[in-house]
Amino acid sequence: MKDMTNLDNFEVGYDIPAKPGMDEADIQTPCLILDLDALERNIKKMGDYAKDHGMRHRAHGKMHKSVDVLKLQMELGGAIGVCCQKVSEAEVFVRAGITEVLVSNQVRDAAKIERLAQLPKRGANIIVCVDDLANVVDLSAAAKAEGTELGVFVEIDCGAGRCGVTSTEAVVEIAQAVQAADNLTYKGIQAYQGAMQHMDSYDDRKAKIDAAVAQVSDAVAALKALGIETELVSGGGTGSYYFESNSGVYNELQCGSYAFMDADYGRILDKDGNRIDAGEWENAFFILTSVMSHAKSDKAICDAGLKAQSIDSGLPFIYGRDDVEYVKCSDEHGVISDPKGALKVNDKLRLVPGHCDPTANVHDWYVGVRNGKVETVWPVSARGKAY
Amino acid sequence: MKDMTNLDNFEVGYDIPAKPGMDEADIQTPCLILDLDALERNIKKMGDYAKDHGMRHRAHGKMHKSVDVLKLQMELGGAIGVCCQKVSEAEVFVRAGITEVLVSNQVRDAAKIERLAQLPKRGANIIVCVDDLANVVDLSAAAKAEGTELGVFVEIDCGAGRCGVTSTEAVVEIAQAVQAADNLTYKGIQAYQGAMQHMDSYDDRKAKIDAAVAQVSDAVAALKALGIETELVSGGGTGSYYFESNSGVYNELQCGSYAFMDADYGRILDKDGNRIDAGEWENAFFILTSVMSHAKSDKAICDAGLKAQSIDSGLPFIYGRDDVEYVKCSDEHGVISDPKGALKVNDKLRLVPGHCDPTANVHDWYVGVRNGKVETVWPVSARGKAY
Repeated sequence: MKDMTNLDNFEVGYDIPAKPGMDEADIQTPCLILDLDALERNIKKMGDYAKDHGMRHRAHGKMHKSVDVLKLQMELGGAIGVCCQKVSEAEVFVRAGITEVLVSNQVRDAAKIERLAQLPKRGANIIVCVDDLANVVDLSAAAKAEGTELGVFVEIDCGAGRCGVTSTEAVVEIAQAVQAADNLTYKGIQAYQGAMQHMDSYDDRKAKIDAAVAQVSDAVAALKALGIETELVSGGGTGSYYFESNSGVYNELQCGSYAFMDADYGRILDKDGNRIDAGEWENAFFILTSVMSHAKSDKAICDAGLKAQSIDSGLPFIYGRDDVEYVKCSDEHGVISDPKGALKVNDKLRLVPGHCDPTANVHDWYVGVRNGKVETVWPVSARGKAY
Repeated sequence: MKDMTNLDNFEVGYDIPAKPGMDEADIQTPCLILDLDALERNIKKMGDYAKDHGMRHRAHGKMHKSVDVLKLQMELGGAIGVCCQKVSEAEVFVRAGITEVLVSNQVRDAAKIERLAQLPKRGANIIVCVDDLANVVDLSAAAKAEGTELGVFVEIDCGAGRCGVTSTEAVVEIAQAVQAADNLTYKGIQAYQGAMQHMDSYDDRKAKIDAAVAQVSDAVAALKALGIETELVSGGGTGSYYFESNSGVYNELQCGSYAFMDADYGRILDKDGNRIDAGEWENAFFILTSVMSHAKSDKAICDAGLKAQSIDSGLPFIYGRDDVEYVKCSDEHGVISDPKGALKVNDKLRLVPGHCDPTANVHDWYVGVRNGKVETVWPVSARGKAY
């Protein structure tokens, strides 16, 4: 296997955009850059918030897929470990020495369950989400066969409309089955309201979380009445963590995007009606792009298109510029409206992508910059790990 | 560097979805699969068409980014070589032994120009597109410094609205500058009408190409009047190749998507008003996905979301099924409407993605299947090569 921690294996301009020590001006585009100062401030701020509110923070690794960013979240932000969505992602973090790993998703395929059940042998405490009694049987059998223990969160669908059960009866039934099963431990409840994270209005988001809190509280109380203690209630994202932190029922956050910020999250509003990228969080994550054609006077063409980002949540905006606008995207090109002819060929721009998670997943590297220099080049460690 | 041609380097379920010889049922999802029979038929068909119409076919490698698929296009479809969009892509194909390589795009950054100018030393004939006199100077200086020759296409913007010049005067001026420059050879004209490829109506597409043909013919005639012969006029895609092939002015095609097909191309109409995926081309390219939650009776959740595809051109459709529909996509999940409860957990489905090019670029591997068995596992050789 290629060792992505040894940058000598890679050639700048062919398979890596930069190496530490280079000037920012010499970075090969398009690529991802991280403003390390902004990243560190975001991470510290969320860490302080969680600590001040008595919350555990299990940083969401599916966003950045990076062992290096996670380690910063643990060292600087006090994160207790990681959550991720896939077994192959969990394997990346466990192989890197992370010991607290939640797969905040269902694992159903037999080969994947077997791999998951092997992870505790590498020294990790593994928790996985369940929304179906049949899965309890399969997880228990695999853990027993491997001689390991798996923790289980019962997943409640509290409004995202994806995985998870919707009734307290179903939560209780699954928790009881987990308690009765060999080699499984009921660890708590997964209740992440993903669908509301991007609603613009603070009050709209609050109403959605209030409903989730009521649903979770009901389940926790019903379990308690049966003598089943719920150790952890986990959830909360960048658009809601203050609600869960003050709910009295959640005790673990799973925030991800706060560390990087993106255009879609940036435009949601805080309680005072300000965009959250205007003070709450800083843009730390950019696509660096170069102008590579300006054959029409009012239009610059840049080298970052669909192969450098995901536009599922809209086009990127150009950071720090209001005179030019990214207006169109094709496979390898971005069209920039430049009515005043402000740009010239080889000018570099920072794009804030619409959605950070799938944009990071297109790239192999993060180039960390500070004071105009490349300070770090980190692999997107779990890029492409979708299994 | 990791040798992606030696599959022993990779572990199924961690960093590779399958190995040759496996049953199709054991492939780890989500991943890309190729129906090898359909792929071969598509490739043979386009090859026969080009041959019958006296056209060169320079297959577009930016679509599949695969040395193996390109070799099939050359062996089975008579393709004369490859075009691609980036210097780093060209490097992948040249390192794999491909000798006819067109970078159908501008190269402006000094480091990239230097790398491009080095490629002929590896035995390749390189052509690059130009839309600016300043670029002629830079390309010439770099080729001279390397002691190599570069071919040049003058790029005409014939309606795509991206790179390229729009007037015959500008074409002539650049072609003359190329002829006068050391170490450059004027090879012809790049005129790809990208914007019309996805227009549903055959007649609408024809009108756009008629305009492009008139524009190109005018430029070729003006050059000829000055004694400048245009060896190649290159362009044409899956939605238009029959127009260019019968234009009397184009002599080289650059088709890509015909080999795989996707949902967005599939819905455009041929001259008889039929979808082109209903006879002209077969779906050969799929995302294989598994159902991983069915906690609601009318909704199945599958394991292919935004990390397994690009939805810039719409959501995927589920191949061969009209009872279930992929209706929503988030990072790691797809929501499938299943009103009759036809699906169960661990069922596998084939998704036809909206847009093949950026979807292929998310994955590391193509799993080639035939008769229910995995026959080939090919790397997406130039995945992530965006520089």
